[in-house]
Amino acid sequence: MIYWDHNSTTPCAPEVVSAMQPFWSEAFGNPGSSHMSGRRAAGAVTAARAQVASLLHCRAGEVVFTSGATESNNIVFLSLLLSEKSDKRRVVTTSIEHKSVLEPANLLAKNGFEVVYLPVTHDGIVDLKVARTLISSETVLVSVQAANNEIGTLQPVEELANIAHAAGAFFHTDAAQALGKIPVDLDSWGCDFASFSSHKLYGPKGIGALFVRGGPRRWPWPYPLLGGGQEGGLRPGTSNVPAIVGFGEACRLASNYISDMPRLQKLTDLFIENFKINFPECIIHAQSALKLPGTISIAFPGIPSDILMANCPDYCFSLGSACSAGAVGPSHVLQQIVSDPRILESTVRISLGKDSELKELDGFIKILKLLAYSNIM
Amino acid sequence: MIYWDHNSTTPCAPEVVSAMQPFWSEAFGNPGSSHMSGRRAAGAVTAARAQVASLLHCRAGEVVFTSGATESNNIVFLSLLLSEKSDKRRVVTTSIEHKSVLEPANLLAKNGFEVVYLPVTHDGIVDLKVARTLISSETVLVSVQAANNEIGTLQPVEELANIAHAAGAFFHTDAAQALGKIPVDLDSWGCDFASFSSHKLYGPKGIGALFVRGGPRRWPWPYPLLGGGQEGGLRPGTSNVPAIVGFGEACRLASNYISDMPRLQKLTDLFIENFKINFPECIIHAQSALKLPGTISIAFPGIPSDILMANCPDYCFSLGSACSAGAVGPSHVLQQIVSDPRILESTVRISLGKDSELKELDGFIKILKLLAYSNIM
Repeated sequence: MIYWDHNSTTPCAPEVVSAMQPFWSEAFGNPGSSHMSGRRAAGAVTAARAQVASLLHCRAGEVVFTSGATESNNIVFLSLLLSEKSDKRRVVTTSIEHKSVLEPANLLAKNGFEVVYLPVTHDGIVDLKVARTLISSETVLVSVQAANNEIGTLQPVEELANIAHAAGAFFHTDAAQALGKIPVDLDSWGCDFASFSSHKLYGPKGIGALFVRGGPRRWPWPYPLLGGGQEGGLRPGTSNVPAIVGFGEACRLASNYISDMPRLQKLTDLFIENFKINFPECIIHAQSALKLPGTISIAFPGIPSDILMANCPDYCFSLGSACSAGAVGPSHVLQQIVSDPRILESTVRISLGKDSELKELDGFIKILKLLAYSNIM
Repeated sequence: MIYWDHNSTTPCAPEVVSAMQPFWSEAFGNPGSSHMSGRRAAGAVTAARAQVASLLHCRAGEVVFTSGATESNNIVFLSLLLSEKSDKRRVVTTSIEHKSVLEPANLLAKNGFEVVYLPVTHDGIVDLKVARTLISSETVLVSVQAANNEIGTLQPVEELANIAHAAGAFFHTDAAQALGKIPVDLDSWGCDFASFSSHKLYGPKGIGALFVRGGPRRWPWPYPLLGGGQEGGLRPGTSNVPAIVGFGEACRLASNYISDMPRLQKLTDLFIENFKINFPECIIHAQSALKLPGTISIAFPGIPSDILMANCPDYCFSLGSACSAGAVGPSHVLQQIVSDPRILESTVRISLGKDSELKELDGFIKILKLLAYSNIM
């Protein structure tokens, strides 16, 4: 099996699996308990929080553990929905966000908020000039992803945060795809809130974080999830200690992946070069944009992506976004930058990871050529 | 270390750890992906869902995986909060619910709902006669726990579900403490929604379920958490495959624990007998109520619980509810059934588990006697 779907999820690093091991049946306590078992668990959570904060360039107290970026995004939007006092009702985002931003934004729109979508260029990048006009003094929240999961484009989050702050708005970024792939420096990015998922960077599923500048006490709106007061009250529920420890270890390891980025970028370039040589008619989406290393959104016109997948049972890549469980039809992201349905239906996403190699490409190219020469259309 | 805090959390069973193992780094795919790696993960989720459904006596399609009972409870209440159409605005619950029910209920109360708290007897049991009068035709939701986490009392959920349904209301039960300790038969209980946590029954933390009668398509209110459409849309976010598999295995094993219940009940009785012999003045809370085997809420008047804990560094038990992270002061549950502050401050919760033994009691009794004879008051 050749795995080219790292933007969907990644395998746990062996170090991550080892780090979690003691916390299943030995140090299994509830960090909320004041006895020895609980205190040992609490100590592990503290250490992991510091590891995550170190990768994010923030303070440990600003890291709120959640079940992942989808939950982190939902907390931001649901919380704003509960803020009766705010008379500023404009929310600015883009139409190429993850569904866990777009759908909560739509919920706000149904409940009296004005949701404005920043246009993106044909390369999938937010136009800052337009952003400056749309992010007005009525704006309460700007939410723009750091990196797109499908086409890999990087957004100018630092500039967008500055524009948001100049207008008196909060700035949130869904950075689930960025973490572990590019340096994430929340200090220089200047965002107020940011969402992360551990399983995108070789950590366990079911754990992630919501960064809150200044910590949960500085949270501006009512808490939407309520209960036992964990994570400063912002994310209640028994702390998922093994997963938190695994996420911490994944963050510690991530500095390796980031230093490996030049290799991954070179590998990505070689993949694209090979595709172009063998299929001159292939189309690389968002070709000239600044992108995540490893992400290749590519169309092979004439070869529908589902037929390509059916013919490549040993290759794991994505038709659209795997985050849309059971979704059919072209992705909402591609539709923003591609209009030709023939190109849409023939687009696949290949997302390489730390163990990807050039030789994996050989078999895939052979299948592609076979399909291109047969009458599949 | 002697662990008497099983109502707070439990160690993973060795079989659970083994069952999860292949899903960290080998079968690590995203079940939302249509390639081989994703399909293998999806198959594992399907199998686990059947294991959970089997223990719950419901259909697999009625099990929605969440991060745990706290999230399940929050989904129910937040969802009701978003239901603009419902003209029925009365919500009936009790004042001894878990905080993840009480606090969301309070959020409803702040937003135009009428929240009514059913009184409990001095043994912590809901009075059905009063329930019949308070659960009126204006009631949209009744939420009563199956078993109390602090005092172990079992509520008459079947009767309450009948009363709720006769009034045209939905019935929800937080059954986090019941699952794996007593038989949970959702079919005969008749509830519409129920919340569960895996880590209470020797499964992993960070995973649980929300039972929805008829499945997510029968959900009566808007979904509060939005995103990629997983779990029928009711609980979005990449499926936490290893934890789901572990939860499934824990449910498969749970039939063993339940058949072990007579032993655990006998052990509980022996603990209480020993306490009464050595400390005739001790007070067992909710003594005559039907309770979870293993749960002993007991006061040793004259020995403040925090001093007892400080003197028993090798014993892990609870002062109040460990779910209230960093909480101080007497528990909200005990305050409903105990008025004497001297008894409140000297109450501890001992919750035994499948590996608990009578001999563990010896050292504890010695320390208790030492404290009773010294001038600690």
